[in-house]
Amino acid sequence: MQQNGLMMERPLLLSSVIDHAAQQFGDVEVVSRETNGSLFRYTYAQCAVRARQLANALKRLGLKQGEAVGSIAWNNHRHLELYYAVSGSGMVMHTSNPRLHTQQLIYVINHAEDRAVFFDSSFAPLVQSVAPHCPGVHTWVCLTDAANTPAIEGVANVQSYDELIAGSSDQFEWPQFDERLAAAMCYTSGTTGHPKGVLYSHRAIVLNAMAGCMPGILSLSPNDAVLPVVPMFHINAWCIPYSAPIGGAKLVLPGPKLDGQSLYELMESEGVTISAGVPTIWQGLLAYVEHNGLRFTTMRRTGVGGSAMPQALIAKFMDTYQVEVRHGWGMTETTAIGTMGTLPPQSKGWSQEEKHALLAKQGRSAFGVEIKIIDETGKSLPRDGVSQGELMIRGHWILSSYYKGEKSPLVDGWFATGDIATIDAAGIMQIRDRTKDVIKTGGEWISSIDLENAAVAHPSVAMAAVIGIKSIPSGMSVPCCLSCGNQEPIWRRLRFFNFLKTRWPNGGCLMTLFFWRPCR
Amino acid sequence: MQQNGLMMERPLLLSSVIDHAAQQFGDVEVVSRETNGSLFRYTYAQCAVRARQLANALKRLGLKQGEAVGSIAWNNHRHLELYYAVSGSGMVMHTSNPRLHTQQLIYVINHAEDRAVFFDSSFAPLVQSVAPHCPGVHTWVCLTDAANTPAIEGVANVQSYDELIAGSSDQFEWPQFDERLAAAMCYTSGTTGHPKGVLYSHRAIVLNAMAGCMPGILSLSPNDAVLPVVPMFHINAWCIPYSAPIGGAKLVLPGPKLDGQSLYELMESEGVTISAGVPTIWQGLLAYVEHNGLRFTTMRRTGVGGSAMPQALIAKFMDTYQVEVRHGWGMTETTAIGTMGTLPPQSKGWSQEEKHALLAKQGRSAFGVEIKIIDETGKSLPRDGVSQGELMIRGHWILSSYYKGEKSPLVDGWFATGDIATIDAAGIMQIRDRTKDVIKTGGEWISSIDLENAAVAHPSVAMAAVIGIKSIPSGMSVPCCLSCGNQEPIWRRLRFFNFLKTRWPNGGCLMTLFFWRPCR
Repeated sequence: MQQNGLMMERPLLLSSVIDHAAQQFGDVEVVSRETNGSLFRYTYAQCAVRARQLANALKRLGLKQGEAVGSIAWNNHRHLELYYAVSGSGMVMHTSNPRLHTQQLIYVINHAEDRAVFFDSSFAPLVQSVAPHCPGVHTWVCLTDAANTPAIEGVANVQSYDELIAGSSDQFEWPQFDERLAAAMCYTSGTTGHPKGVLYSHRAIVLNAMAGCMPGILSLSPNDAVLPVVPMFHINAWCIPYSAPIGGAKLVLPGPKLDGQSLYELMESEGVTISAGVPTIWQGLLAYVEHNGLRFTTMRRTGVGGSAMPQALIAKFMDTYQVEVRHGWGMTETTAIGTMGTLPPQSKGWSQEEKHALLAKQGRSAFGVEIKIIDETGKSLPRDGVSQGELMIRGHWILSSYYKGEKSPLVDGWFATGDIATIDAAGIMQIRDRTKDVIKTGGEWISSIDLENAAVAHPSVAMAAVIGIKSIPSGMSVPCCLSCGNQEPIWRRLRFFNFLKTRWPNGGCLMTLFFWRPCR
Repeated sequence: MQQNGLMMERPLLLSSVIDHAAQQFGDVEVVSRETNGSLFRYTYAQCAVRARQLANALKRLGLKQGEAVGSIAWNNHRHLELYYAVSGSGMVMHTSNPRLHTQQLIYVINHAEDRAVFFDSSFAPLVQSVAPHCPGVHTWVCLTDAANTPAIEGVANVQSYDELIAGSSDQFEWPQFDERLAAAMCYTSGTTGHPKGVLYSHRAIVLNAMAGCMPGILSLSPNDAVLPVVPMFHINAWCIPYSAPIGGAKLVLPGPKLDGQSLYELMESEGVTISAGVPTIWQGLLAYVEHNGLRFTTMRRTGVGGSAMPQALIAKFMDTYQVEVRHGWGMTETTAIGTMGTLPPQSKGWSQEEKHALLAKQGRSAFGVEIKIIDETGKSLPRDGVSQGELMIRGHWILSSYYKGEKSPLVDGWFATGDIATIDAAGIMQIRDRTKDVIKTGGEWISSIDLENAAVAHPSVAMAAVIGIKSIPSGMSVPCCLSCGNQEPIWRRLRFFNFLKTRWPNGGCLMTLFFWRPCR
C-alpha cells in the first residue's frame, strides 16, 4: 500500500515565477525596445509591481478567471506584464500572430473567445479590420501611453494601457489554484484549414521553463542577458519570458525592430550573451555584421529553431564570430523547446567541420519529454542515426488535444509531429523533412533540408528553398551565378543536385530555388 | 470558470530520471570507488540495466509497493542502482546514517519498517549489532559480490547483491503512479530525542533535482563531472544522484575514501569539475594539496554546506586554486538544496575580499522554494541584510509533517528551520546561528559563526568551535599559540573575542575552542 510523501503541496503556477524574480532578482533589468523605437528599462521588481497593477485593472474590466485575454503584440515590457497578470490571475493569455491572414485572425479571436484584446499601436489598422467581426471582445487596449493611443474608426472606447493601470493598486494576492489549469493558448499557423488552438497549463509552462534554464538547453543564469527574437506571440517565445526570471537572467526584448543593425546594436549595448530566433534572422544579423566588419563583444551562444539552420551559417557563427550555435526544435503543440543540440565533451578533439555537422542537428530531448521515430506501420525505428521515420513526442508539456478539438491527435499516447527525423545512439535527433514534403526516389528518402544546406553552403547562394513541382518547366537549365554566369562551382558543391533531374513516384520533380549573392 | 490546459498528464517520477539518462546520455560514465578501494566504471545505460535487474530481484524477494527498503552504505554504484530500483518500483528508499548511535540505528530501521536492508561490507559489524533487534527485516543484502559477502553471526541468510541480481531479467516496466507518492526517506540526526523521519515524494525530488541542474545552483551539464562527497545516506546527497543524470553530467562516487589524498587523486584522474561536501572535507583536501604543492587541473567549483565555510578557506580555494566556492544551505527537512550562493555579475569590479564575504553567505533560494525571516512574535523581518530572525521556508520540496508525527511542525504553512539568518535586498541569505546556540548580550545578537570565522582566519588556528558554557572554568586564560606562547596577534584578529568574557542573560558564557596549527 503506497502512501504519499509528507511534503508541502504547492502548485506550479506562473505567478510564482514573477514573484521569484522580484524577490531573488529584484534588481536584474528588463530592457524593452518600444514600438516607437525608444528603449525602456526597468527591473523584475518593477515588472512585478506593474503586473499586479494590471491584475487589478483586469478585474476592474470585469474579466473573470478562465476567460481568454488576447494580445497582438511584439516582444516588449507591456506584453511581458500581460503574460504574468493574465495567467497569474487565472485567465488565459491568448497570443495572436499578427502575420495571420485577417480572416484567420478573426477566426482565432472568436474561437478562443477573447473578451479583451491588447495590441501594439502598429497593429491599429489590423484591429480596425478585425474588431467589427469580433463581437465577443468588449475591450480593446493599446499597449502604450494615452498620448500615443490612436482612435480607431469603428472601434468604440480604445483604452490606453498606461492609463488603464495608472490608477490601480499594486497590491494583489495571486490566486492559488490547480497547476493543471489553463494559463495560455496559441494557435498553429501555416496549416491548411483553420488554425488549431493549443491550451497550455501552468504546470506545462513552468516545467518547460525550468528545463530551459539548464546548462544543456539555454543555460540562463544571473550572468546572462537573453534576447528572445522568437516572438512572444508564437510558442511562448520558447518560454524565455518565463525561463529568464527563473534563472535570474537579464531580459532584452527587441520590439518590432528585427533587422540586423537593430539587433546587433541592442546586443552590444545591453551586453546580450544569448539570443534565440529563426535562421533568417541570423542571416540578416550576420550579413550586417560582415558588411560592416563588426564583432560580437558579449554574445556567446545563439539558439536557433523554426527551420533547419544551414551548416554554412553555423560555421560562420562559430569559426568567424566565436558564437556557439544551439539548434533546437519545438512546435506550437510542444509549448516551447522539445530538443536542443550542444557540443558533447568528446567534441574537443573534433575538426570544426565535424562540430558544425553535429550542431546542424536538433539535439537531445529536454528532461521532461521523450522522443521516438516510427515507420508508416507505427513500429519504432532504431536509434542508429540513419533510419528515418516520423518524430513522435510525449511528456509534461506536449498537447493532449486541440482546443474544442473533436478527435485526439495522439497515437498510443504520443503526439505525431509530422516531421521526419533520425535519432542516433547518443539520443541526438535530426529533422530530415516534413511528412508533407518528403521525397522518395529509387527507394531512397531524399531530404529537402540536405539539398537546401548544400545550396546555401555555396558562397554565391544567399538562401535556398527546395519545393516539389509537377514537372520541370521548359527552358529551365542548371543554376548559374546571375552576375558572372559561372555554373561549374555550383555543380561541384551541390552533391545532391542531380536529384533535380530525378522524377519521384508521383511523377513530380524537385526544384531548388536560389536567392543569389552577386559574385565578388 | 477555469478549465484544464490540454496537456498530457504524466507524473514526475524518479524512474523517468534514469530512463532519460539511459536514452540521452547512455554513454556518459558513472565511476565508483568500491568499498575495497578499487575503481568501478560503467555508463548510465548500464546503470539503468542493473537497476531494472534489481527491480526484478526486489519483486522476487516479496517486497511490495509502499514498503521501505533500507540502506547502510557509502556513495557507490550499487547504492545508486538501489536508489532507482527501489523508488522506481514504488517502494521507499530509506537511507540510514551509519554514524548514528547503534540504538538510534535500530530505532530508525524499525520506525521506518524496513523489510530489507542493503549494506556495505564495511558495516557488517554494525549489522551484526542491529539485526537481532530488527525483527521486521526479512532480508539483509551485502552490496558486493559473492566472494566478498561475509557471513554474519546471528544473521541468517546474508545475500550477495551481485548474486541477487545476476539471474534477473533486465526487462522491467517501471510502474506509473501518482507523483506525490513516497519515494525515499531519511531521518534527522544530531537531534535530542529520537531521530525524526522525513518522507520525500517523487515530485519533491524530481523538482529539486531539476533546480539543482540550473547554472545558478550546481550547474550540471554533459561537460561536467560531479563528485558528491555529501553522503547518499544524508539528505539524498543534495539530490546529485538525480541531478547528474538529468543534466547529463558524469557521476563520480567516492565510496568510503574521503581523505584529502583519495579525493584529490579521484578528482584529477576522473576530470571532476564540481564537487559538494561539508567544510571539514574541504579543509582536509586543501591541507593535502597545499602540503604537496599540487594544483587542480579540472575542478572549477565546489559546493559546500552542512555548516558555515570559513571565509579564509573560501579565499584559499578561490585565490590560490581558482576554484569557485558555492555555499548552499539545506536540511533533512528540505529534501536537498534550499539556497545557493554564487557571485553576481556586478562582482566583476569587486575586491577579492568582497567576493569572499559574499560567498561566505548561503545565497538565494532556488526556484521552487521561498524563504523569510521572522522575529519571536512571528512577524516578518525586513530584507536588509542586518535584521536577524528565524529562517522559515516553504515550497515544493519542504516537509509538511514528520513520518508518523503527531503534530504539524509548520507555522502558518512555513517550516521553522531553527536557523537564525539575515536576508538582504538582493535575496541573499546568511545563516548567523542556530536558535539553540544563539547568544544575546547587551541587547545585541552575537553570531557564534562570526566568532568561529574570526578564529579560523588566523593562520595559527586550524579549526574552531564556539560553545556555550555555564561559567568560565577557573584557570582559563586568553588563547595563545601552543607552540610559541604568542598571544598578541590572536587578540588583535579576534575582534569578537571580548565577548568571551561577556555573560549573557541566562548566566552562561561563550567559549571558543581552538584546534591549533603549530607556529611556522
